[in-house]
Amino acid sequence: MKIKAPRKYVIDNLKYALNPASIAVVGASRYDGKVGYKVIEGLNKYGYKGKIYPVNPRAEKVHGLKAYKTVKDIPDEVDLVFIAVPAHLVKMILEHSVAKKAKIVVIATSAFKEIGRGKLQNELTQYCRDNKLPLIGPNLVGMGSPFLNFNCGFIPYLPVKGHVAMISQSGANLLAALGTSQMLNFGMSFFVGLGNKADVDFSEFIMYAANDEHTKCISVYSEGIDSPEAFVQACNNVVAKKPVVTIKVGGSKIGNKAAFAHTASENTNTDDAYYDKLYEKAGAIRAETWEEFLDISLALGLQPPLKDDNVVMITNGGGSGLLSCDHFERKGMPMRELSEISLILSLKIRAYMPMFGSPLNPVDISGTATPKNYKGAISQAVCDPNVSGIYGSICPTSVTDVAAVTDVYIEMYNKYKHLGKPFVMECQGGQECFDSIIKLRKNGIPAYSTAEQAVNAIVALRKYGKIKEKF
Amino acid sequence: MKIKAPRKYVIDNLKYALNPASIAVVGASRYDGKVGYKVIEGLNKYGYKGKIYPVNPRAEKVHGLKAYKTVKDIPDEVDLVFIAVPAHLVKMILEHSVAKKAKIVVIATSAFKEIGRGKLQNELTQYCRDNKLPLIGPNLVGMGSPFLNFNCGFIPYLPVKGHVAMISQSGANLLAALGTSQMLNFGMSFFVGLGNKADVDFSEFIMYAANDEHTKCISVYSEGIDSPEAFVQACNNVVAKKPVVTIKVGGSKIGNKAAFAHTASENTNTDDAYYDKLYEKAGAIRAETWEEFLDISLALGLQPPLKDDNVVMITNGGGSGLLSCDHFERKGMPMRELSEISLILSLKIRAYMPMFGSPLNPVDISGTATPKNYKGAISQAVCDPNVSGIYGSICPTSVTDVAAVTDVYIEMYNKYKHLGKPFVMECQGGQECFDSIIKLRKNGIPAYSTAEQAVNAIVALRKYGKIKEKF
Repeated sequence: MKIKAPRKYVIDNLKYALNPASIAVVGASRYDGKVGYKVIEGLNKYGYKGKIYPVNPRAEKVHGLKAYKTVKDIPDEVDLVFIAVPAHLVKMILEHSVAKKAKIVVIATSAFKEIGRGKLQNELTQYCRDNKLPLIGPNLVGMGSPFLNFNCGFIPYLPVKGHVAMISQSGANLLAALGTSQMLNFGMSFFVGLGNKADVDFSEFIMYAANDEHTKCISVYSEGIDSPEAFVQACNNVVAKKPVVTIKVGGSKIGNKAAFAHTASENTNTDDAYYDKLYEKAGAIRAETWEEFLDISLALGLQPPLKDDNVVMITNGGGSGLLSCDHFERKGMPMRELSEISLILSLKIRAYMPMFGSPLNPVDISGTATPKNYKGAISQAVCDPNVSGIYGSICPTSVTDVAAVTDVYIEMYNKYKHLGKPFVMECQGGQECFDSIIKLRKNGIPAYSTAEQAVNAIVALRKYGKIKEKF
Repeated sequence: MKIKAPRKYVIDNLKYALNPASIAVVGASRYDGKVGYKVIEGLNKYGYKGKIYPVNPRAEKVHGLKAYKTVKDIPDEVDLVFIAVPAHLVKMILEHSVAKKAKIVVIATSAFKEIGRGKLQNELTQYCRDNKLPLIGPNLVGMGSPFLNFNCGFIPYLPVKGHVAMISQSGANLLAALGTSQMLNFGMSFFVGLGNKADVDFSEFIMYAANDEHTKCISVYSEGIDSPEAFVQACNNVVAKKPVVTIKVGGSKIGNKAAFAHTASENTNTDDAYYDKLYEKAGAIRAETWEEFLDISLALGLQPPLKDDNVVMITNGGGSGLLSCDHFERKGMPMRELSEISLILSLKIRAYMPMFGSPLNPVDISGTATPKNYKGAISQAVCDPNVSGIYGSICPTSVTDVAAVTDVYIEMYNKYKHLGKPFVMECQGGQECFDSIIKLRKNGIPAYSTAEQAVNAIVALRKYGKIKEKF
């Protein structure tokens, strides 16, 4: 349900969604394979240290814990009530939660507005609002944080620790991101699924993330923004401090219907151009594809913004250079020639390549490049006052020491980090390139396996540079 | 140098580039780290069974093999002469190769037209043409085939066996593809770097690939096509039998210059629209990004073409469904509603989902879907006479048995393969999803880690369906 602005009582209580001292799990099941079972299993498995109160009127014990017949029967305070019971029972649980003075409720249950029960969903929402009890969901997968060892929902993994706050309306895509986090060292500060987002809104989690100590980039996947004023207000509040990355789906004809069937999102009269305008007003950066969404979030979580277009690409592979040239132009940020950026650099950098290298930009130090060549070229480029960012690339020829070149990039990055010039990398190939990407990411350098992904990241860093000038 | 049409003597001799009985390696070095050393190392390491003749005027032995002072001194026949000596020595080696009646020469050496020595390159090319000695290169990385255990060049890996013939002007990007092949089970039939492609042309390798028994998809990375008539003629000849996938770089302003500096490719007066038209005339399918290039090549190498737009997506994740809807529309092939494709299917498929599932299209059988639900939904869809292709998706919720659902897809694919309806899959998440992708690929189903990649693959299968109708 629409809100005009992010609400203080909601933002204040969101900490109980991610760091509750106690949780009541309503619909806690004794049977493996059931959602209500998985919630407690996940809490235990990932190291939740607070109190868990299973609520199940037909069980004495669940997961070895004493079960309670209702939320009201729990003898202690309850911060978070996690609800996984059929839709028709939810109203009663909310009443018990209000009586219990719970701080926040999370409704995982599906089958509300997305199947036509909009009235029921609105009634529940209004009841929570009347009682100042923030409601997350319904129809969601869960939430958590690797910093708090907190995995609350039906989620098979925690992400690795990092700087991206992932706020996703879709549970499936949230799980995709969490799995990717593990596979590709995509670090997150916290994550939350919003599902139908009947009450708690994107804008409120954006405001919360702005003050979260681990978050450096706020990433929002949405299927429909029904409170655009609140969204713009929240973004305007935070983007000077932290970037907001967005992806909006459901803009296609059939996607419009599918978005309603999925998270009850309404997209009437809001085409892609509408969202472009909305995001521009908000100061948020929009991604087109899911991969781009993750890739640019990673970069914005790790690197400072890019202050102008003077990026120098240093590569031992002309092909990745060419893919990059074309993609930069496609993205509206054509590469500049090295001699235009810095004539002296274009002359000096010649020393680090054979005669068939190219000091244009991309700087192609050739397939025979040694770690020493790389070191010389990178340090010349990063120290040139006209250069604002380094785009590194490694191609695995049989004479390339990928691991050693990776270490050179990390060394140069750490040595010159104080200059505030972003580093972004590309390294495509076999296992050694995959290892390089992971090592670079662990050392704070966003690295990707294709040139176009790296270019998307650089373009996003530049966009954020412009947003910071404006807000 | 331009050719008007693919030349028979060249096509006939290309088999010696990929399956030579004997190779002279000119510039064979005794020192590890040198390109001339790596060539022989690679031939031995990957199991080349033919004869290797190192040519080095200053060594008695190289890699334990007797070295010869010149090609002419080799006592037996020589099929392939691989040249890795400085540019100014190449003319002499070519003369020796002609005298020796070699079948083909490969020039790895750089520093020809790409650094302004166009005249020298043209002279060498004309000399080879006058003597009907096909010349591959110069300025290339090498070639090989996993079916022949053949790795000839400075290439750190062989790809896994498969159906894509990879013809790449760029060495760096060829290496990227070979590494990706290993990491993501992207199977190839053979691969070749063309570099400056002074003599042997794309068109000739396309004609060769058309008759290669392992090749089912011909993929061409180019930085400039200087013999467009020959390209169109070759494609027109083969596309009824095998699809041709292309990616063209160097279309951007700075890329134009970089392409010349890299492979001496000239792109004056040939903008992106020019190439769009050329590829359409040829019946080739054009990819925009490198990832798309590999993704659609994989699909076209594994699956039959799609005969119309009636694709049914079956997923347990609404989010991946939505990303797919939008991307299909972006790519000009909007999804069709299930009830439009087959009203009866849209009713029958309800049996395999909970009440909050969606029988629209994407068919969202919901996050609680079991392998049995999947099996029912897939078999109903694939058996419906109005359905032309299956787009499968697995989202790893904590109650999803990803491995079991993967096996269901493989079982259904094998059971109904005879219907000629393509299967494409998407599965994003952690290790279990990665394992699923690899297993699916090994079983002939193109599978990807994002929805948009899978959609690109399906759109390409449809494009090939249309091309087959036309040619």
